[in-house]
Amino acid sequence: MDLMIGIDGGGTGCRAAVAGADGRVLGTGTAGAANIVTDLATSHTHIIEAAEAACRDAGLQPEKLAEMPAVLGLAGANVGGNGRLLEGMLPFARSAVVSDALTALVGALGPHDGAMAIIGTGSIFAARAEGAVRFVGGWGFKVGDLGGGARLGRALLEEALLAYDGIHPRSPLTQRVLAHFGNDPQAIVEFAHTARPLDFGTFAPWIIAAAGTSDPVAERLLDEGRRAVEEALAALMPAGCDRLCLLGGLSAAYAGLLSSRFGAILKQPFGDALHGALAIARERFGPGGANQP
Amino acid sequence: MDLMIGIDGGGTGCRAAVAGADGRVLGTGTAGAANIVTDLATSHTHIIEAAEAACRDAGLQPEKLAEMPAVLGLAGANVGGNGRLLEGMLPFARSAVVSDALTALVGALGPHDGAMAIIGTGSIFAARAEGAVRFVGGWGFKVGDLGGGARLGRALLEEALLAYDGIHPRSPLTQRVLAHFGNDPQAIVEFAHTARPLDFGTFAPWIIAAAGTSDPVAERLLDEGRRAVEEALAALMPAGCDRLCLLGGLSAAYAGLLSSRFGAILKQPFGDALHGALAIARERFGPGGANQP
Repeated sequence: MDLMIGIDGGGTGCRAAVAGADGRVLGTGTAGAANIVTDLATSHTHIIEAAEAACRDAGLQPEKLAEMPAVLGLAGANVGGNGRLLEGMLPFARSAVVSDALTALVGALGPHDGAMAIIGTGSIFAARAEGAVRFVGGWGFKVGDLGGGARLGRALLEEALLAYDGIHPRSPLTQRVLAHFGNDPQAIVEFAHTARPLDFGTFAPWIIAAAGTSDPVAERLLDEGRRAVEEALAALMPAGCDRLCLLGGLSAAYAGLLSSRFGAILKQPFGDALHGALAIARERFGPGGANQP
Repeated sequence: MDLMIGIDGGGTGCRAAVAGADGRVLGTGTAGAANIVTDLATSHTHIIEAAEAACRDAGLQPEKLAEMPAVLGLAGANVGGNGRLLEGMLPFARSAVVSDALTALVGALGPHDGAMAIIGTGSIFAARAEGAVRFVGGWGFKVGDLGGGARLGRALLEEALLAYDGIHPRSPLTQRVLAHFGNDPQAIVEFAHTARPLDFGTFAPWIIAAAGTSDPVAERLLDEGRRAVEEALAALMPAGCDRLCLLGGLSAAYAGLLSSRFGAILKQPFGDALHGALAIARERFGPGGANQP
């Protein structure tokens, strides 16, 4: 029986699935965060915990992991050699650490060609056409990730300060932000000084809610986000692309805003990133796969 | 003889001047940085060094400082009580710590009413009309300081990444930035991750130089900066304002770009921030001043 294992890991947790050569999932398991950029050792521990739990769920001894090839989709896989480093530490028969965006793409598209946008705290875009995969964006909110929640939140704080100074018009939303900071602009500055992407991103739902009541500042910020998302997709999508999947926490908000060119080809994702990891494992390590001995 | 002392301090150094009640400068001195937000103790040391040097330059014993009132214009004077804390540590007869933007405004306008924009790494705007002073901006580059060098530089790095991804058109300037980072977008991301305002600001001169050769990206970024500066000035300037002083490292670049409404009232600054500190000292502590016993 040709078993293989797929892992989907990130800052909030780690999921594993054991599957047969036909792709059928035999067992799953979860464990804590796997952020290999900030904590490789803990990530390693959690990955093995999740994989062993998936084994037990499939009625297998954890020792069997040594016989299974694994594909791991992890954030930061391509940053500073962390992915290669982790591959050398893992107990699986063979290991391939790939980016979480690749497993998300392969999972979302299934057997089809098409494009994907992941818009959560950050933003990244990818397309696959005739086997060729291309990514754009995903550079982090400081100089990228346009349209993502951190950028939306940061832009809202800037608008609140511009409204405070009388430079831009106030709106119910900018007043709500100022009130949240005790009507003290210096409190906004201090928050922004140490805010991480997730912290800025906490204000994205405020924008989405306010846009629902036609707040002009919220509508403008969301429209700037939509334009950035559409610019990235336009640059990325091959001619004739007829499938676009939106993933991430802001996908529902943007789905309703997209121009018809993009809205018309929106499709539900075929599967999730864990499915994607298993699909890549099957392709690389399964019968007739690229890396079979 | 009613002597007083003025101090102009900041992240790059500290200047002091001793003047008579008529405002005539009798001696000046300099010392190291005075950044009271990050290092109050060293700032205190440098302020006293500069003041004692000014005394000696005026042919006075440093002990005379205990008889002189002082006004100090310092960055961060209004942040977290640092200004008040420093006032209690100083050896002068009386001390008033005010923001460096106020001493710059009073110095630049001299006896006139008018408006001022300081556009360097950051940006802040102020106006005085019939004794009333108002400031806008200056909130730091993360959620403010529009038009300043840090914002320009950060925007350029973002454009270089958008050009790399094929989302926005390339230009000679975006190509120069990519080449500077070894054509490795990840190197830009890593730079941005730890860059301070001054680090981002190092790219502002690149933009100004490229705009001089009609680079389209440089022209667009500088035009966005100009619009932000003009929006702030429009919100700030009282009706009939006929005097606008531009200060800071980017003032020359922006002076040539301003719309005629603003360009027509540009004036050379009357004096610098040290003159401003002495003018405030004269007003508050001089004969007939607000705080005379």
